[in-house]
Amino acid sequence: MSLRQSLQQRFDAIPMARVMGLEVHEVEPDRVRLHAPLGPNINDKGCAFGGSLASLMTLAGWALVSTRLEAAGFARNEVFVADSQIRYRAPLWGDLNAAAVIAPEDRWEEVIAAIAGRGRARIGIHAMIELADGGTACSMQARYAAFAAG
Amino acid sequence: MSLRQSLQQRFDAIPMARVMGLEVHEVEPDRVRLHAPLGPNINDKGCAFGGSLASLMTLAGWALVSTRLEAAGFARNEVFVADSQIRYRAPLWGDLNAAAVIAPEDRWEEVIAAIAGRGRARIGIHAMIELADGGTACSMQARYAAFAAG
Repeated sequence: MSLRQSLQQRFDAIPMARVMGLEVHEVEPDRVRLHAPLGPNINDKGCAFGGSLASLMTLAGWALVSTRLEAAGFARNEVFVADSQIRYRAPLWGDLNAAAVIAPEDRWEEVIAAIAGRGRARIGIHAMIELADGGTACSMQARYAAFAAG
Repeated sequence: MSLRQSLQQRFDAIPMARVMGLEVHEVEPDRVRLHAPLGPNINDKGCAFGGSLASLMTLAGWALVSTRLEAAGFARNEVFVADSQIRYRAPLWGDLNAAAVIAPEDRWEEVIAAIAGRGRARIGIHAMIELADGGTACSMQARYAAFAAG
């Protein structure tokens, strides 16, 4: 099973992610991209529901941290979102496309050293959801707590 | 139709809120309480999904601002979440109960004056989701943008 399929299977175990129609579009060491169609994710105004935007960004960050820990050899890991700041910049009238990357100020080597030494670490993630014209519908800065046994 | 029923009807127009099983439990001038059963809102670990926690708090804040503007005579209003900060403090293994209040540092009279004068205002909201033992599963500070025509 590919990394993308394995991640899709984990998302499919979350009922709300399934109802959102969440699809894993890309899993790279430096970036995860998730997609959801607008249809099930509208609010009462017909544009994207804020809760779906927040969910998709939060899951993209979770996926990035989880898969990267696995790739680093920590197959048995648990990752939780600890805190997040979200800015809603513009209404989104199309499908939801989220991308998550490691926060530029975080060094992955230090995260791995902390996990290897203490079995846990905090990791910063930046995520956003794009507008069709290339702008930003919303952006998130979040920290995740990761626990792993080598 | 009661204020509670009217608010429930607005939530029922949001597909994800309906799937979450969102119920309006209390609508008071100073506080809105929303409820959702754990069942449809679990993550892959079986506790409450972070996206559902964020959605319920964000909707509770939106409901408080909207209904309070209506009560102040601004029947035609639009309220959007502008930004939010969420702290996830403890996993929640039971139903989701969210409460939202106006941020203590915000004066409702000033909000009303801004709406009456310029047709718009920003309003701070504090929201949280309770643990069964009275503790806090997560908390949110958010700002909402409100637009209204008298």
